[in-house]
Amino acid sequence: MQGIESLKYDSAGLIPAIIQDVETGEVLMMAYMNRTSLAETLRTRRTHFWSRSRGKYWMKGESSGHVQEVVEVFADCDADTLLIKVRQVGVACHEGYRSCFYRRHESDGQWVVVAERLVDPEQVYGRK
Amino acid sequence: MQGIESLKYDSAGLIPAIIQDVETGEVLMMAYMNRTSLAETLRTRRTHFWSRSRGKYWMKGESSGHVQEVVEVFADCDADTLLIKVRQVGVACHEGYRSCFYRRHESDGQWVVVAERLVDPEQVYGRK
Repeated sequence: MQGIESLKYDSAGLIPAIIQDVETGEVLMMAYMNRTSLAETLRTRRTHFWSRSRGKYWMKGESSGHVQEVVEVFADCDADTLLIKVRQVGVACHEGYRSCFYRRHESDGQWVVVAERLVDPEQVYGRK
Repeated sequence: MQGIESLKYDSAGLIPAIIQDVETGEVLMMAYMNRTSLAETLRTRRTHFWSRSRGKYWMKGESSGHVQEVVEVFADCDADTLLIKVRQVGVACHEGYRSCFYRRHESDGQWVVVAERLVDPEQVYGRK
């Protein structure tokens, strides 16, 4: 398997990328890349994604400063999912949590916040 | 946020589920669930998925015995991705590796196998 052209992108040209903290093993987030944002991720060693909702490229941390330094990039057996191990500066989640996966499913069916909010989102991104 | 109906499924009714080893933190695989397979996962505490390529439900390990015992289920900030922490019996990957993410991108552009194959796929699934 050679290069990023050997990966399988979906019909929209996207591939999901799981972002994991290389030091703690915590899964921080998942977002989508296309060929261009993956190439830019590999070139700059900072994660770049394609926003499906906003229809634009974004570098993680471009407005917050909470960038992700790429350490290792893995592909799965089907070559249709990426796992990227990073050093996370600050927090990964725009809601101010270290990881986007801060809600746990409880036996009563509720999703309960089980992480600590480390950053006030309004301080990072400004009031909307 | 209450129940699995509060999650956001894509236009095909699917939500990606990242599967992580609860003990080692290793990301094992990613696969897709729909409402029915997620409900079955929560009910039985064994991971169940929807196969997009085969168009059918499958319980992880149903033919190999390499089941995943569900310990915790998390949703992300957008409620469109799941993180499921499991106790993995045997190996997660049908190629015989512990994790599906066994290929690493090297600086020369090659994807190189960096994990050890623990199980002969033919011994688990039979010759094709």
